[in-house]
Amino acid sequence: MKILSSAEFKLEREVEYGSPQQNEAVKEIVQQIKKEGDAALLRFTEQFDGTRLEADQLRVTQAELKAAYGQVEPSFVKSIQAAAANIRAFHQRQKRNSWMDLQPDGSLLGQIIRPLKRVGVYVPGGKAAYPSSVLMNVIPAQVAGVPEIVMVTPPATGGKEGVNPYILVAAAEAGVHEIYRVGGAQAIAALAYGTETIAPVDKICGPGNIYVALAKREVYGVVDIDSIAGPSEIAVLADEHANPAYVAADLLSQAEHDEMASAILVTPSREFAERCAAEVERQLAELPRKDIAGASIRDYGAILLVDSIEAGIGIINRLAPEHFELLVENPLNYLGLVENAGAIFLGPYSSEPVGDYLAGPNHIIPTNGTARFSSPVDVDDFIKKSSLIYYSKEALLGAAGDIMELARKEGLEGHARAIEIRVKAETEGEGDQLC
Amino acid sequence: MKILSSAEFKLEREVEYGSPQQNEAVKEIVQQIKKEGDAALLRFTEQFDGTRLEADQLRVTQAELKAAYGQVEPSFVKSIQAAAANIRAFHQRQKRNSWMDLQPDGSLLGQIIRPLKRVGVYVPGGKAAYPSSVLMNVIPAQVAGVPEIVMVTPPATGGKEGVNPYILVAAAEAGVHEIYRVGGAQAIAALAYGTETIAPVDKICGPGNIYVALAKREVYGVVDIDSIAGPSEIAVLADEHANPAYVAADLLSQAEHDEMASAILVTPSREFAERCAAEVERQLAELPRKDIAGASIRDYGAILLVDSIEAGIGIINRLAPEHFELLVENPLNYLGLVENAGAIFLGPYSSEPVGDYLAGPNHIIPTNGTARFSSPVDVDDFIKKSSLIYYSKEALLGAAGDIMELARKEGLEGHARAIEIRVKAETEGEGDQLC
Repeated sequence: MKILSSAEFKLEREVEYGSPQQNEAVKEIVQQIKKEGDAALLRFTEQFDGTRLEADQLRVTQAELKAAYGQVEPSFVKSIQAAAANIRAFHQRQKRNSWMDLQPDGSLLGQIIRPLKRVGVYVPGGKAAYPSSVLMNVIPAQVAGVPEIVMVTPPATGGKEGVNPYILVAAAEAGVHEIYRVGGAQAIAALAYGTETIAPVDKICGPGNIYVALAKREVYGVVDIDSIAGPSEIAVLADEHANPAYVAADLLSQAEHDEMASAILVTPSREFAERCAAEVERQLAELPRKDIAGASIRDYGAILLVDSIEAGIGIINRLAPEHFELLVENPLNYLGLVENAGAIFLGPYSSEPVGDYLAGPNHIIPTNGTARFSSPVDVDDFIKKSSLIYYSKEALLGAAGDIMELARKEGLEGHARAIEIRVKAETEGEGDQLC
Repeated sequence: MKILSSAEFKLEREVEYGSPQQNEAVKEIVQQIKKEGDAALLRFTEQFDGTRLEADQLRVTQAELKAAYGQVEPSFVKSIQAAAANIRAFHQRQKRNSWMDLQPDGSLLGQIIRPLKRVGVYVPGGKAAYPSSVLMNVIPAQVAGVPEIVMVTPPATGGKEGVNPYILVAAAEAGVHEIYRVGGAQAIAALAYGTETIAPVDKICGPGNIYVALAKREVYGVVDIDSIAGPSEIAVLADEHANPAYVAADLLSQAEHDEMASAILVTPSREFAERCAAEVERQLAELPRKDIAGASIRDYGAILLVDSIEAGIGIINRLAPEHFELLVENPLNYLGLVENAGAIFLGPYSSEPVGDYLAGPNHIIPTNGTARFSSPVDVDDFIKKSSLIYYSKEALLGAAGDIMELARKEGLEGHARAIEIRVKAETEGEGDQLC
């Protein structure tokens, strides 16, 4: 692992926007689903997934969901239940009430907070199907109070069965019972516009390949979408009191995700840096996914030497990493300085996988520096707010002068007159019967 | 105003995405600003705004800000101060604290809530320069605690002076003192990437023309952006107890914004519908902006007859209007049924312009049906959250089995080992010195 002395390190990764051909293909798929519904959905499922289905086979049956429990180990069910309970408990604390503010002039102002009505969760097929991500997408929506949560996931190639049983168990434990075996851009379009079988949703979330990402961008505005996640990242700021074996293991746990994942160690100690670099080499050699993790460490990994912990925090704030481990002697001395990090892990026992699977906070976290302005997925992503304004006669008469002044300065006479007509009617006793 | 009996009315408006030529032009401007900074910014300002500036003239001076107060009426200053105070008070109620959850096993989970560091507000030039919108964009950011709020607005064509003094006064009253006289796509690019004179921001908000909108979309990801507002909308649900003159005035106050604005009345009473239609004609004839309002009413206005108030609410929920006035005898009987509306106005004195200017809730509200899944601008738009995870040794040892189980089922052995290495070291007493 390379050790750099420069504090000017900058993480540069290409963001994938898709080729013009991919964009065109996705637009065409979306249009056909919008126009033809199920017929197009079944056609694309045969074409891209090699699976021939009838419309009444799209939905995963309750029997299949039940059968999935027999196809997974009881230890898995127990662990997914433990994770779901912690995730639910953490997200419960994010719930907010509608509120109102009553004024002595009789006016009432407020904010009404409501769950979205129907949310679609995309779950990729194959090796990228992570049961933990099912929990992380579904539970916040469920805690928000979303009454209808629906899942889509590609059918196993060449068969009508074969939705991954671990995914089905995670879905059931999270509380999703409406699942369709469709994937790709066609599944996103079906969620956005609806088909005869699949009712349209208000928001689509969950990761997917480039076609899924492009389709989500294409339907944005018709429905809400979550943000597109980039490759995973970890930054560890550690001093010589930390355990190099722990640091190396945590760096590798992110590196094994993806050749483009990034693992960065920032430390004021060259000796510690060298011990960590050696540990990374040693542990990497024994890792099943060493090809992936090795490429990630080589291309996007680095150990950065800094003059002080404070200078290290400065680098962290510039990187705005998805995951940040603060492994220094007194982490609370520095926590207040951390401005930009998606999730912050303190101390030697808060290994990043604790957050990936079990602690409770969401593992869908801003990547690629966007923690500067965005946040981990939470309950807020599944609610909407409406402003509420009730003005009494007294309140309106008190405010009328200012409203008309501002409206007329903006050249909006119609706005002023909507107020004036009331003032005239009410003060001249000419008010019609009013409700 | 046309009266339709169908409950199947659907509001269809084209969304403006810009021509390929406009998209290309904006991409080129953004690239040149990114590469050349001030030099390109000054060049585009001369080219598009006809204003030749030096870099040290970009920023509006404190003297200009002060002078602006002499160029506006004292009544305007008083009204803008009243509005600012109400907007600030309402948004103050949206502030949230960071929180934590301490468990008996010594673990600590939490969510850290922090303001964005630097926010840029775009204010259009010419007639679309609304002082009220300055307050509505700036104050939520300020209440969120954003320490640096910067404004950009195009220079008056052909001169170096000439930022609208009403805009400057609104900015000063809202608390913005860093203002640059640049506009268009070049201003958005300067805010996103920074130039020698303008430091880059974390989020850009505020309305603008198609070039501004395309530039915001182009830089999204480098910075956050607000959502692109569509034409204004009002839907009024009224029964025969309402005052037709009030209803007509409120419909026209939205119609006067834009030929594409939409004003819809929903009512169970045909007689009331006819009285309102007549009132709209009468008031429209006297409106200064009658050409705009008339086109809006003709093309996007309608009165919809429904069988009941409840059926009317059903239409409202399908429309998900930006502004919704509920003018029926007992509005609280129906409020709970309203699922989708950006801002809800109750009763005869809560005319929509009350919300545009003075009440306090934000007037930047989702349009075009997006109130189904999005919300008025508020303090939440200017904060970011970080998850916080501190696990004690006891908490880690208790959770280790479940974490390793889930990681291994997902094929992520490196994740499991980051936990395992700690469990082994801690239970075999081989822990290195730890911080």
